Amino acid sequence: MTRKREIHLGLFLQGAGHHVSGWRHPQAEAGSENFDLLRRVSQIAEAAKFDIVFLADGLTSGADAHPSTIARFEPLTLLASLAMVTEKIGLAATASTTYGEPYHTARAFASIDHLSHGRAAWNIVTTSYARTANNFSKSHPEHDERYAVAEEFVDVVRGLWDSWDDDAIIKDKQSGIYADPEKMHILDHKGKYFSVKGPLNIPRSPQGHPILIQAGSSGPGQDLAARTADIVFTAQQSLEEAQAFYKSLKDRVTGFGRHPDDVAVMPGFLPVIGRTAKEAEEKLAELDQWTDLKAAMPLLEERIGHSLKDYDPDGPLPDLPISDQLRSRAELLTALARRENLTIRQLALRVAAGRGHHIVLGTPVEIADRMQQWFETRAADGFNVMPPFFPQGLEDFTTLVVPILQERGLFRRDYTGSTLRDHLGLTRPALPPVFEP
Amino acid sequence: MTRKREIHLGLFLQGAGHHVSGWRHPQAEAGSENFDLLRRVSQIAEAAKFDIVFLADGLTSGADAHPSTIARFEPLTLLASLAMVTEKIGLAATASTTYGEPYHTARAFASIDHLSHGRAAWNIVTTSYARTANNFSKSHPEHDERYAVAEEFVDVVRGLWDSWDDDAIIKDKQSGIYADPEKMHILDHKGKYFSVKGPLNIPRSPQGHPILIQAGSSGPGQDLAARTADIVFTAQQSLEEAQAFYKSLKDRVTGFGRHPDDVAVMPGFLPVIGRTAKEAEEKLAELDQWTDLKAAMPLLEERIGHSLKDYDPDGPLPDLPISDQLRSRAELLTALARRENLTIRQLALRVAAGRGHHIVLGTPVEIADRMQQWFETRAADGFNVMPPFFPQGLEDFTTLVVPILQERGLFRRDYTGSTLRDHLGLTRPALPPVFEP
Ligand SMILES: Cc1cc2nc3c(=O)[nH]c(=O)nc-3n(C[C@H](O)[C@H](O)[C@H](O)COP(=O)(O)O)c2cc1C
Ligand SMILES: Cc1cc2nc3c(=O)[nH]c(=O)nc-3n(C[C@H](O)[C@H](O)[C@H](O)COP(=O)(O)O)c2cc1C
Repeated sequence: MTRKREIHLGLFLQGAGHHVSGWRHPQAEAGSENFDLLRRVSQIAEAAKFDIVFLADGLTSGADAHPSTIARFEPLTLLASLAMVTEKIGLAATASTTYGEPYHTARAFASIDHLSHGRAAWNIVTTSYARTANNFSKSHPEHDERYAVAEEFVDVVRGLWDSWDDDAIIKDKQSGIYADPEKMHILDHKGKYFSVKGPLNIPRSPQGHPILIQAGSSGPGQDLAARTADIVFTAQQSLEEAQAFYKSLKDRVTGFGRHPDDVAVMPGFLPVIGRTAKEAEEKLAELDQWTDLKAAMPLLEERIGHSLKDYDPDGPLPDLPISDQLRSRAELLTALARRENLTIRQLALRVAAGRGHHIVLGTPVEIADRMQQWFETRAADGFNVMPPFFPQGLEDFTTLVVPILQERGLFRRDYTGSTLRDHLGLTRPALPPVFEP
Repeated sequence: MTRKREIHLGLFLQGAGHHVSGWRHPQAEAGSENFDLLRRVSQIAEAAKFDIVFLADGLTSGADAHPSTIARFEPLTLLASLAMVTEKIGLAATASTTYGEPYHTARAFASIDHLSHGRAAWNIVTTSYARTANNFSKSHPEHDERYAVAEEFVDVVRGLWDSWDDDAIIKDKQSGIYADPEKMHILDHKGKYFSVKGPLNIPRSPQGHPILIQAGSSGPGQDLAARTADIVFTAQQSLEEAQAFYKSLKDRVTGFGRHPDDVAVMPGFLPVIGRTAKEAEEKLAELDQWTDLKAAMPLLEERIGHSLKDYDPDGPLPDLPISDQLRSRAELLTALARRENLTIRQLALRVAAGRGHHIVLGTPVEIADRMQQWFETRAADGFNVMPPFFPQGLEDFTTLVVPILQERGLFRRDYTGSTLRDHLGLTRPALPPVFEP
């Protein structure tokens, strides 16, 4: 493709803010359970011409969880509501392949794609936390089996989306034909994990397929992404790690016979913006100071997959086996602790601030420089922006950083299309040929 | 309760209209997949002060299905969108206990209850059609086992809704306490079909519990309703049958130690309105004339649970065993055929017109008279109104029949509250006492 490369921007919408203490900031309004806030914040991102609003998800709760995840809306219903109060911005929600059914998932995202006129995206996750199983009358599969299930799950969903030709609904009052039976197809999938006959009970959606996002960075995670995804959401700490991940992912994309531009790599990116670099540092220090170790430790332990209560918080991270369930995040945090020689306490605070995502401190120009660097040196095709608190943390970004990116020709000044596919520069998938026996 | 008894009105929203040929009417706009139509129609019902909009659902599709069900929105996402474009009317969606997970279901309805500020309702169904299993990698349980699953499913959902105290979210910036751990409760349900630990990841919702509707009329169906439901949706052909069902249901409600007024019985009610009785008859004849036997037969066979292709369409309905899967509907249609001495063709046309629900032909006064009769002689506490086509079929009802009911003091002139519980005159459920060991 010869189209000009442009940065893609996502808003990672986490109601209480991304910094674990973000909600305590005097300017913060809080709550993943506060629809009015989520609506306003989504509208701010749309006014700034972001590609997408992104909702993470989880299927457990506890008072010691990140405050954005203790209580939150069910993401598909939230997305369907946001579709009514926005017009152009893409709308992504997370749904698990380990705790879902392909028929329900295919249907819900097709439904949102219709309701939003082509703006839906599914963030495919395999669910890291084993305790999720306690809420679903089953046991939690191992890491690699979860990805095997996910591979098949995604194929079934895409097959169901294609079980209707685009022109299957006729609604001809004269002849009385509502839908053309020739244009509705049995899928008859019979695989290792799923048997799904089809067709789906909703027509092919405006985008053909809602956009697929994959968030999982291990080898099997990258393979799933490279084969199926349009966007990869990932956590990357340093420029070098991000470049290596970017290259690894794009090589795999090519390996699956796809064009590397067909997949946008978007690391999480947490900006702390000051008028001076010093002011930015003070802002982060202010947030960190509200974080006590008691709140930070569970977040670290959850991502490392080990209890750390028997270790000195002011000593180094002990050598612990990488948790199989959490693979890529556990590796990232271990590497970070080693590279920067962090104590357990320092690592916990870092996780409390950004959960392993890249944190950038600085003036608007410095923030824009970092984004440009990552973008131009192929560490990223875009960023999932993680304001430390809402709405002010986002407004700082949209009013101070976005205009710089626009002046530099790195980011759109207006939407040129109306679907999420348009924003991403992706074409609508053709229907696969139907082989009738 | 000493409050005045008033008729409750639901709009049974079926995009292509309830009569199988409704969408072919010159005045009809069609489509369960047409959001703009569904939005306008819901707003018409709200302007007429209806209690609730009701979405049925199914988990299969086929070109020979009822045109309202070939293609439709996923009901929970549709409900979340309708919540944004309406303000007072209750919003009910169907979700199956046979093809769902209690955690997902509890969460989605709590989410919609929050998004709509207390207007959500869950229509609990067990899913009649065995072919549904083909889309869900499992086999279809028998009728009575489906109800055993449903009983436990509903208990888990209600337990999850109560896993948060109403005041659990603190969000105190000073102390840093977001949620009070003492006010989030482990459910730890371990039953025959489900093991669900909890707590839910969304706070207790505005209605405490979203309203529960039950649609299943066999003995086990009535028991589930009597024990748990706030509204019973049912198909009743004659006044006598409806009275008998009403009494049976209310007796069971009393048997479970509940007050009979706590459950509203709302049969489906399909009005065909003319300026004269003759005009109404002609209107139905016009719709019937567009229905060919080829379209009508699958709808009858599906509800009877037997193929009828080897029988003379102009002969009587043969003696066939009552399908266990479809129990109450198969019984109703068999009784109807016997009572009115219908041929297979006539019965198929009746099913094509109203799917077994009560059809009333007449002038607005005659329609209102019938409603008043059913209401006053304890055949119904309200009606799920099924316009044969949209939007005109609904507008005829709201502009011509509703004012008569209002003049007679049988139906509200305005909403007096803002939640669905308010419309139904039901109080918010208290939290069960917590026994801490
Ligand atoms: C950036 C990123 C975001 C993720 N978001 C979610 C999420 O919202 N919900 C969830 O259950 N899992 C989420 N995951 C977890 C993954 O789906 C996966 O289960 C986990 O990362 C382990 O796989 P991996 O080793 O391939 O990364 C996320 C993972 C990454 C890397
Ligand atoms: C009035 C009525 C409406 C129903 N609506 C639905 C529906 O929307 N979706 C569904 O899957 N089943 C629906 N059902 C089916 C019931 O949940 C149940 O599976 C079926 O009626 C058999 O149970 P029964 O013998 O107790 O009636 C409905 C049943 C009745 C009586």
